Amino acid sequence: MASQWYKDAIVVDGMNYSKWGLEIFESMHDGGLTAVHVTHCPPYLRLADTIKSLAQWKKWFRDYSNVITQVYTTEDIRRAKRENLVGIILGWQDSTGFDDHLYNIALFKELGVGIVQLTYNTANSVGCGCYDSRDGGLTDFGREVVAEMNRVGIAVDLSHCGDKTAEEAILASKKPTIYTHVDAKSLMDVPRNKSDAQLKFLVDHDGHIGVSLHPPFLPHGNDSTMDDFVDVIDYIVNLVGEDHVGIGTDYVQGENTDAVWWEMIIRDKFHARKLTDEIFTSLRHPADLAGIQCFPNITINMETRGWSETRIRKIMGENFLRYLDKVWAV
Amino acid sequence: MASQWYKDAIVVDGMNYSKWGLEIFESMHDGGLTAVHVTHCPPYLRLADTIKSLAQWKKWFRDYSNVITQVYTTEDIRRAKRENLVGIILGWQDSTGFDDHLYNIALFKELGVGIVQLTYNTANSVGCGCYDSRDGGLTDFGREVVAEMNRVGIAVDLSHCGDKTAEEAILASKKPTIYTHVDAKSLMDVPRNKSDAQLKFLVDHDGHIGVSLHPPFLPHGNDSTMDDFVDVIDYIVNLVGEDHVGIGTDYVQGENTDAVWWEMIIRDKFHARKLTDEIFTSLRHPADLAGIQCFPNITINMETRGWSETRIRKIMGENFLRYLDKVWAV
Repeated sequence: MASQWYKDAIVVDGMNYSKWGLEIFESMHDGGLTAVHVTHCPPYLRLADTIKSLAQWKKWFRDYSNVITQVYTTEDIRRAKRENLVGIILGWQDSTGFDDHLYNIALFKELGVGIVQLTYNTANSVGCGCYDSRDGGLTDFGREVVAEMNRVGIAVDLSHCGDKTAEEAILASKKPTIYTHVDAKSLMDVPRNKSDAQLKFLVDHDGHIGVSLHPPFLPHGNDSTMDDFVDVIDYIVNLVGEDHVGIGTDYVQGENTDAVWWEMIIRDKFHARKLTDEIFTSLRHPADLAGIQCFPNITINMETRGWSETRIRKIMGENFLRYLDKVWAV
Repeated sequence: MASQWYKDAIVVDGMNYSKWGLEIFESMHDGGLTAVHVTHCPPYLRLADTIKSLAQWKKWFRDYSNVITQVYTTEDIRRAKRENLVGIILGWQDSTGFDDHLYNIALFKELGVGIVQLTYNTANSVGCGCYDSRDGGLTDFGREVVAEMNRVGIAVDLSHCGDKTAEEAILASKKPTIYTHVDAKSLMDVPRNKSDAQLKFLVDHDGHIGVSLHPPFLPHGNDSTMDDFVDVIDYIVNLVGEDHVGIGTDYVQGENTDAVWWEMIIRDKFHARKLTDEIFTSLRHPADLAGIQCFPNITINMETRGWSETRIRKIMGENFLRYLDKVWAV
């Protein structure tokens, strides 16, 4: 059982892409989550479908107001904690929802979109992805998008971006950027993971790293354990210090065993060529990390390692909150 | 007055982006046009708006069936000639209307979209544009788009593309590609014009070049004359031979004097940063090239140069028709 202080702690999942509905929201609450950054609609969607998805979420916020609450500001996260609700941070894994229109960016911020990844796996008008065979870098238009996201206070997520696009975005952004859900390439060499140099570069520019527990990216792939996951956190903390690291599970609860969904996920634009042969279709999590309700188990593992309460609190959520304080301030 | 044979000739405008309506259609007819490749809706539009524009055109084809007729095949162009109608080839100056979905490409071909430019001035998911500060080349997804356009028989237009994107598309395409509306950079050094090497490279791969009479790109800019325009044709014919050159006016009749429209046109995505300081807002054509009704004047100028009827017929339309025969055959 997690320590007594866990129930007072700020606990954040910095990336979650589950099959949304009350069941998942209740799992978050059971796991003691203070806030969750949700991918509220699939990547590649354009304006109209993105708006429809937002409207659906607004409905859920009304219907399930005893479980979840929308987060617009970091104060909303603190309020969620006080009110024993799960704060929902709406975000995208792709910038296509802006529909290539800069003025849409402020509009989505007003509706509560707080974190947007520039590219999802492959090229768009803003930059390239980590599965592109070449990376042409952040485009001229991409620089305008980053500047407008900075201005209105939307976090620039670079997890699925290509190396050059990510590096140039880190340099172009006037606010710290974020890898919401990545693992260490030194421990598992896949295109989605980041090298030591890349992890350090982001943190050197005051960025935040959310460590993913998506099994294929952990040191032992689908055979990885809770220890493997916390080992990655430990590795990255040793690399960049304990003030810029958190958790971004990348849970896809409700989709795990859906072969049709996985066949879609591994293709560009969810229908074109296959981007990877990584065997996502047999995705499985260790039992003690089966879903977001297992969050307390992570703390227990950290405590058995002798980590201080201070360090654990930082990684479980305080670092993420401090990061948002910086990028959402306008 | 143009020679007697003009009325029997196949006369094609390979690019026209006017303010559509009956008045323009009648100008085409007055000019003796057999077929016109029209930019049927503005660049940057997505699926839904593109479909709406197509629906409007279908209405015009019904309402003005005594003036225009839709072109799906090159036989439709020959039929238009026989029936004394202007054949309309529907096209785009930007591939965003596909909405990043490969399967939409065949659907638009079925609706009659026969020519699509990959990028308009700047980067999208397919490649970069001629006004981008860097060109990352044809993307992996762009290669899939080109392959599908080849399969269904849509011409790959590269006029506004970046140099590297154009070169890689020429190599990737299994069908000859096209510059529907360009001029010679050797005679006027602007980003939209093509170098001798680029013009030759396209024709070495069996492509077709439509020479634009957009004044800012002609040798004397807005002071250019009919002679300047035909000089460019002459220059390019001397460079690549007389079998791969035609006319793509890039007329914007009905928009010429609209300062608001021009302010939009020179910006990325029609609203973001300015791409050029070229003074389009004072655009003016010489009187004998004031609009598409002036097409016979071009032939007259060519005849005074002593060009053979054979050469003139090729440039006025036969080359374009032969090009379409190749790329539309599936």
